[in-house]
Amino acid sequence: MEELNELWGRYNEFKQRNLKLDMSRGKPCKEQLDISEGLLTALSHNEDCFGENGIDYRNYGLLDGIPEMKRIFADLLEVSENEIIVGGNSSLNMMYDSVARAMLFGVLGSEKPWSKYDRISFLCVVPGYDRHFSVTESFGINMICIPMLDDGPDVDMIEKFAAKDETVKGLWCVPKYSNPDGITYSDEKVRRLAAIKTAASDFRIFWDNAYALHDLDSEGDDLLNILEEAKKYGNEDKIYMFCSTSKVSYPGAGVSCMAASVNNIEFIKKQLFFQTIGPDKLNQLRHARYFKNADGLRAYMKKHAEIIKPRFEAVLTELENELTGIASWHSPRGGYFISLNVPSGCAKRTVALMKDAGVVLTGAGATFPYRNDPDDRNIRIAPTYPPIEELKTATELLCICVKIAVAEKKQGENK
Amino acid sequence: MEELNELWGRYNEFKQRNLKLDMSRGKPCKEQLDISEGLLTALSHNEDCFGENGIDYRNYGLLDGIPEMKRIFADLLEVSENEIIVGGNSSLNMMYDSVARAMLFGVLGSEKPWSKYDRISFLCVVPGYDRHFSVTESFGINMICIPMLDDGPDVDMIEKFAAKDETVKGLWCVPKYSNPDGITYSDEKVRRLAAIKTAASDFRIFWDNAYALHDLDSEGDDLLNILEEAKKYGNEDKIYMFCSTSKVSYPGAGVSCMAASVNNIEFIKKQLFFQTIGPDKLNQLRHARYFKNADGLRAYMKKHAEIIKPRFEAVLTELENELTGIASWHSPRGGYFISLNVPSGCAKRTVALMKDAGVVLTGAGATFPYRNDPDDRNIRIAPTYPPIEELKTATELLCICVKIAVAEKKQGENK
Repeated sequence: MEELNELWGRYNEFKQRNLKLDMSRGKPCKEQLDISEGLLTALSHNEDCFGENGIDYRNYGLLDGIPEMKRIFADLLEVSENEIIVGGNSSLNMMYDSVARAMLFGVLGSEKPWSKYDRISFLCVVPGYDRHFSVTESFGINMICIPMLDDGPDVDMIEKFAAKDETVKGLWCVPKYSNPDGITYSDEKVRRLAAIKTAASDFRIFWDNAYALHDLDSEGDDLLNILEEAKKYGNEDKIYMFCSTSKVSYPGAGVSCMAASVNNIEFIKKQLFFQTIGPDKLNQLRHARYFKNADGLRAYMKKHAEIIKPRFEAVLTELENELTGIASWHSPRGGYFISLNVPSGCAKRTVALMKDAGVVLTGAGATFPYRNDPDDRNIRIAPTYPPIEELKTATELLCICVKIAVAEKKQGENK
Repeated sequence: MEELNELWGRYNEFKQRNLKLDMSRGKPCKEQLDISEGLLTALSHNEDCFGENGIDYRNYGLLDGIPEMKRIFADLLEVSENEIIVGGNSSLNMMYDSVARAMLFGVLGSEKPWSKYDRISFLCVVPGYDRHFSVTESFGINMICIPMLDDGPDVDMIEKFAAKDETVKGLWCVPKYSNPDGITYSDEKVRRLAAIKTAASDFRIFWDNAYALHDLDSEGDDLLNILEEAKKYGNEDKIYMFCSTSKVSYPGAGVSCMAASVNNIEFIKKQLFFQTIGPDKLNQLRHARYFKNADGLRAYMKKHAEIIKPRFEAVLTELENELTGIASWHSPRGGYFISLNVPSGCAKRTVALMKDAGVVLTGAGATFPYRNDPDDRNIRIAPTYPPIEELKTATELLCICVKIAVAEKKQGENK
């Protein structure tokens, strides 16, 4: 009781400061965006706009993107150039469209469009990326939660669901520096997913490799190439990989990419033909000229790490000092988030207290399908965007809010 | 017979020249693309990337586009800024996605998604834009042909179909400098379309104003604002307008736009939320800064007209000299095409003869749903892309091919 009073005292001190902070979204900060200034003028003259193939990229054409950018993504994802489609500025858009096409027309190997089933389901690793879940929900697809473990999802459970029911059509994964836990799937988990036996002939693993390059340390985690592994089991058509330069160049004006088996790519290109005459080739060329090659992109990621690593450290230090023994978290070696697990029943209250004091966090529950964290314990922290001093303030306050929520809960239980 | 021999002689002379010409697609030529060079460097420094609202356009956000570009499109289309969504580089993509969302979820006022009907139909003004028809066909939507007349489509027929059948859900129009005829709908036709009574509560007119600014003469045609007219009849929710800068700046890297009633826009934004975090705002800002305002865009169109008008004239002069009394066409005051109507049964043969001699035309029939021109008479000529000398050569050959096809047909009839 005394402890709670003291916490409220400290909380109210923060509240009086009229904070207006935002730790809700995984956005790069201004310093990160500033390092790509040269990208703006990578194409400056008319004659810069022609591809290595002599094609005028200002004009129509090239449905699946320019070869220069295909080569870079192929190198990054360790696939061949004919396993790549380069898109517009949003990989989320490519994922949404991939599900939309599956609903409307089916994927390669579908007996019928997915929308013709009474109900289909996707397996969702939790906690996970809220936008994956909202895409799925928007199509009325049922979502089944698969717990994230220390080295990737509970694959036993995935195998069980996928094997027994042909209306289980998909699995969402962020396999490297997972959103929000920051965990990279182990080789064994990737191999088992690559070898998966599914009741549905048209099952797809949506492998959102959003943080493929986003190491915080000089030596990043290694992720096994699931497309290559899947080929060993004749499963290559089950894999859709996605990535983008959104957090390398610009979130609002980057280049996205999809990688899949040649059969899938050919099938998808036939569907894509109806949707567009082609992506923005000049922005693709701008990226290819500026970053030059996959190593060029990788080098930029070191600059990003220099900027954001201290932010991660500031949050983690504060959590360690204040919440050890109270809450748990994983110290990520890359990605954009820290996933804080508070005692059950305390996440919503913590986020509400933060909001009342002027700090916006991702809504509690957002990392679960239907925004429903059954244990009400996961809070996603996005440390990259705020200036480091604000981040320290916000984290200090966060620790107080967690403690208040925990103390209140105990008090309630003792009544 | 002697005439045919002479024609073959001339044809073979052309054939021996091993021509490789392309008059198939409405693409701007290199000179047109070159005039927008300054667009490439309209944003050159980090500090250029902030909007008038202080928002960093390099980062995520602004689902429906930047206010600077909304204002320009609102001015061009004579609608308000809250009746606008600014998109990516392709208005075809916006149209496709609009139909896709209707199929998956329905539009504002739909009882159910359009894909839940056994069959729905669209009314298609013919000859028309092949990509409209291929979008429609890709969704399995039945297409009903509506003949184009001298001042717009046969509205009597549109009214009849729309009024009697609630599975008639849409109408495709290119209302200004129509593709391919180059005809602008008269005020009376626009008013009748705006006032249309439809059996379906969720009927939509897809008003593809692709050539809104694309005058060849200093004084262009005037097109009545259908959204404004529709408001008089409570029909504003029936109108989806589309346009883009594809043929103002760059076909591959322009900015597209959709305009509709505030109710429609709000409804669509809710659906769009799931698809993307936002369009490429930097490319939008690049356009807004470079062209400044709607008048800036209009001024550029005069430069385009200077470049392409002689090309139209070259084709029209040759047609007049050679095909008067044999074929018919409309001399367009804007747009990108000349629509040539040859005697029935002669279009395919003409296009095939051209192809054999090395000149690619748009496939005969392409301007009709299912690529089926019932009279086999319409040929779409796209004069903007080839250099003028090539264009003259190609048109000379075209006239010969038409005459051969006509002579062969006569011969066949006389047998």
